[in-house]
This record gives sequence, structure tokens and C-alpha cells, in this order.
Amino acid sequence: MSLLVIGTLAYDTIQTTAAKRADVLGGSALYFSVAAAAFQPVQLVAVVGRDFRPGDLQLLEQRGVDTSGVEHADGRTFRWSGRYEADWNTRHTIETQLNVFEKFDPKIPSAMRSSQYLFLANASPLVQAKALDQVDHPAFTVVDTMNLWIEIMRPELLALLRRVDGVVLNDEEARMLTGERNLLKAASLVLGMGPRYVILKKGEHGAFLMGSDVHFSLPAYPVGMVVDPTGAGDTFAGGFMGYVARAGNLEPKTLRKGMLYGTVAASYCVEGFGIDSLKERTRRDFDVRYDELLSIVTP
Amino acid sequence: MSLLVIGTLAYDTIQTTAAKRADVLGGSALYFSVAAAAFQPVQLVAVVGRDFRPGDLQLLEQRGVDTSGVEHADGRTFRWSGRYEADWNTRHTIETQLNVFEKFDPKIPSAMRSSQYLFLANASPLVQAKALDQVDHPAFTVVDTMNLWIEIMRPELLALLRRVDGVVLNDEEARMLTGERNLLKAASLVLGMGPRYVILKKGEHGAFLMGSDVHFSLPAYPVGMVVDPTGAGDTFAGGFMGYVARAGNLEPKTLRKGMLYGTVAASYCVEGFGIDSLKERTRRDFDVRYDELLSIVTP
Repeated sequence: MSLLVIGTLAYDTIQTTAAKRADVLGGSALYFSVAAAAFQPVQLVAVVGRDFRPGDLQLLEQRGVDTSGVEHADGRTFRWSGRYEADWNTRHTIETQLNVFEKFDPKIPSAMRSSQYLFLANASPLVQAKALDQVDHPAFTVVDTMNLWIEIMRPELLALLRRVDGVVLNDEEARMLTGERNLLKAASLVLGMGPRYVILKKGEHGAFLMGSDVHFSLPAYPVGMVVDPTGAGDTFAGGFMGYVARAGNLEPKTLRKGMLYGTVAASYCVEGFGIDSLKERTRRDFDVRYDELLSIVTP
Repeated sequence: MSLLVIGTLAYDTIQTTAAKRADVLGGSALYFSVAAAAFQPVQLVAVVGRDFRPGDLQLLEQRGVDTSGVEHADGRTFRWSGRYEADWNTRHTIETQLNVFEKFDPKIPSAMRSSQYLFLANASPLVQAKALDQVDHPAFTVVDTMNLWIEIMRPELLALLRRVDGVVLNDEEARMLTGERNLLKAASLVLGMGPRYVILKKGEHGAFLMGSDVHFSLPAYPVGMVVDPTGAGDTFAGGFMGYVARAGNLEPKTLRKGMLYGTVAASYCVEGFGIDSLKERTRRDFDVRYDELLSIVTP
């Protein structure tokens, strides 16, 4: 089934304890697309500046991402700069330059408006709602968000949550959104806000999926060496949505398998800088690691 | 198969953000025994002082714990006092009084020396080795330890590890023992120290088991409300060993099921103060929650 993502393309400056790299291709929609495209074609709507490197769009095209919905605006591409501490759990944002993303007014090309599977990557809930308005009758819409929007645009976010099927949150966001520390209770409260499904991401501690007909908890894939965790959450969402869209149904079994593929995708992501490792991975690689993860988590 | 535990019986003073209780029955061997006894009879070797309440031994007897190996020494029972912060992850030890445990010289009654399954709960590696010396030919010996012994008795601990089949460690202990931050690599390094199996406990983030023929990772049971996490690690070990000893084999399937039962036992433990909740749980309760956990973690 057709899969559409609306989000950011960016250039990131990333500092780990081992290395620092400037202008690394990034953004929520980038990580999502590269992961999801291992499963099936992906349609991408985003905005970039005049400085966006043509080769970076080609990379996406070669991966099977339709970039005809990428708008080229006057100005510079979105930029994010951050630094990780040695334990990876602490991330310091050094700078965020919205640049062309500040006035992003998503325009979904008519050919993409009939998309069945829709991922609204992190953006202001107003931008996400504008994108959602333009899609005819999506069968499965999942939204991501961040602490900033929970804080400064809570009413708009709550309005959006009533219109979507699923939401992905990390532990901190779930607690902030619900005011509940216990993640199980927080997830239940989120379900009361509208979505049928909530995916709660806990980074190196795994993730769980909760819905009226499914409750599935999964540890992370045991990665031998983390190089750069940037984009792992969006990559998880990409692996999950890519698999589910390919399967074309929302059976609990499909959603569970999607969680495993999301976990596999995230593990490949963190093994390289930016998408260095992820972009080399084929569906075959995903399947090999899926089988390994399955053997580790099956009781 | 017969199951023997050597460890502490204690009176704990526990402070959470919600409550404070003094002289709560506790100790590593207490939590282990109460959990394991849900599966089969347990033999207990420990030392208590003259102040130990007879009713506390009766409680164990009624649960199916043979306390004939509990030595009554002159002096006071081991006491520990600690405080938890609101997130449960930070525990402050306020005071440890070894009391009669300081000169504990374990004497295994002759009737218990042929035990097949042996758990050496946290104690100095020298005390643990003395206990191990007195058991004829255990089929499966598992040892627990703590940061203190890793720091001040490393050679003695390493010598003991070469003599046992399994070791349970929490994440901090695994990192301290191996000098490796990555838990997967840390577990591999521990296996190189002698044991055939290592169980790595990550508290609310679950646990994993690694051995030459098995690698199994499991999230924690999603507890709705934590009341007191004291003893959860020993309770996990008790549920694990109790099930495995009852099954009487070390097949990977058995060890995996043991991990689930350990997780279930720990979840009951943290739902009450001390053993308040745990001690009320029958094998039937364990099985009900086992099935629930199984449904949550099965892909």
C-alpha cells in the first residue's frame, strides 16, 4: 500500500565523544524514508533550501523514495547541531536553525493524496494538521511529536491526536503529555486522547505498542557498538510503517512484526554516523537481523 | 530437584516517597526463598540474631521453606536501612549493620549437602566459597554479588566465578566487573570468566540471559504501581531458580521460562512493601501472570 511521509530534511552537525561531523544529511523524514524504503516505495513531502545538495536527493531516489513532493524554497535548509555524552542517554542541542522549515506550508502533490499509510513526522501540530487535511482517506495515520509542541501547542496537539490512528512517543514525551510517570498508565492515558495505538519508545531499553487489541513489549536489539544515535526514533518509525504498509493490514500479528522491523532498522541506524550504515541495508539485511532478534526475544 | 539457598535474613528500614517502615523482614535469602517456594520446597541456610521474631521463621516454614539450616547466633540480626527517590532508580543506603552476619560461617546441614540446585545469594565471595565447598555435586550453582565485593575482593570473586555455572548481575555490577559499558560485551566478558550462563538484570528495563546455547532478552512486566522495589533482584533469582529446579533440566526452553517466572516474581515483589504482596502469591498466581507476560512479549 502507498506510504507517505511529511517531515524534515536537514543538515546536522553531530558531536559524539569519538567524532564530530558537520552538515550530515539528516532530518526526521530522511531517516524515516531510508528505513521504510527497504520495504516498499515511499512518497516524501518536505522543504529544503537552495543549499541542498542534489546528490542527497539522488540518494533518496535511488533508494526508492519519490522526492517529487520536496519543495525547494529560497533560503537555507533546516539545520540542527547537537552533542552526545558518553552514555548516549544525554543529548545536548547546541543549535536549531529552522531556516526554510520555519514557513513550511506542506503541499501534498495530487498524486500522493490517495496515500493509505501516512506518517506525520515531528513538526508543529498545525503543520501536521495541514498535511493531514490534504490526504483523502488514509487507512492508517501515525504522528510523531516532541517536548516543545507538548509544552507550547498542547491544544493543537490534542486536537490532532483525535484525528490520527497512532502516535509514537518517547518515554519523556509520554510523561510530559500525560503527567503520569508510570509508562503503562501514561500509554493508557494517551489512548484516551484519541489514537487507537500508541508506540512508546525507550531507546536502548526497547519499545512497546499498546492498543485495544494488542499489547506488545520488546527489548532493543543488542547493538555491539553505538556510533551515533541520531535519527534512531524516526528510523524505528520508518521500519515499523514500511513493514506495515507493505503487509497492508493492521492485524496484531502485523503490528508486532512491524515493531521488530522498527527495532532492526533503529539498530542499523545507530551503528553508523547519520545514515551511513542504514542506507546500505537491503530488505535482505533487515530479514537476517529480524530472524536474529526473533530468536533472542521469543520465549 | 532439591534447591538450596545461602544468604541473609535481615530486618530492613525502608523509606519511599510514600511511606517509611522499620524492621521489615528482608534479606537476600528471604526474598529468594519466598519466590522459589511457590514452585517447590526450598532449603535455607542463614544466620539470625537473638532478636529474630519466631513468627518470621514460621512464615517461611508455612511457605515450604526448610529453616533447619538457620543458625541462631548471639547478637542482633543483620540490618539494612535505605531510602528510594521518586524515580525508584536511585537508592540511598543509609546504614548497613552486619551484626551476626559479620562472622557468618555457613554450615550446611548434612541433609542439605546433596542439593542439586544451589543459589549463593550476595555475601563475601569467601563466605560463598565456604558454602559451595560443603555441597557435594550441585548440578547448577548460581551466584549473586554486589559492587562492594567487586571492588574489594575481586581475586576471590574471580576464583569463585570459575567454580559456578551461572551468575546474576545488575547492569552496574556487570560494568564494574568487566570495565565494559556495553552490556552485550560485558555479558560476553563475564562468560569468559568461567560461568556458563550470565543473567543481566536491568530493573524496570527487564533482563537478559546469555550462555553458549541461549541468548534471551525480556522486558520487565509492566507493573501499574511500584510500592517498594527492595528485594526485586533476589526475588527474580528465586522465581528463576525455583522454576528451573522444579523442571529439573537446563534446556534453553527451561531457562527462558525461568526468566519469565523470575520476571513475574519480581513484579509481585515490587507491588508491596517487603514481601507483603509476594508472600500471598501461589503458583497459580504466578501462572496467571506468566500467561499474561507471555502474551505481551511473544512476537
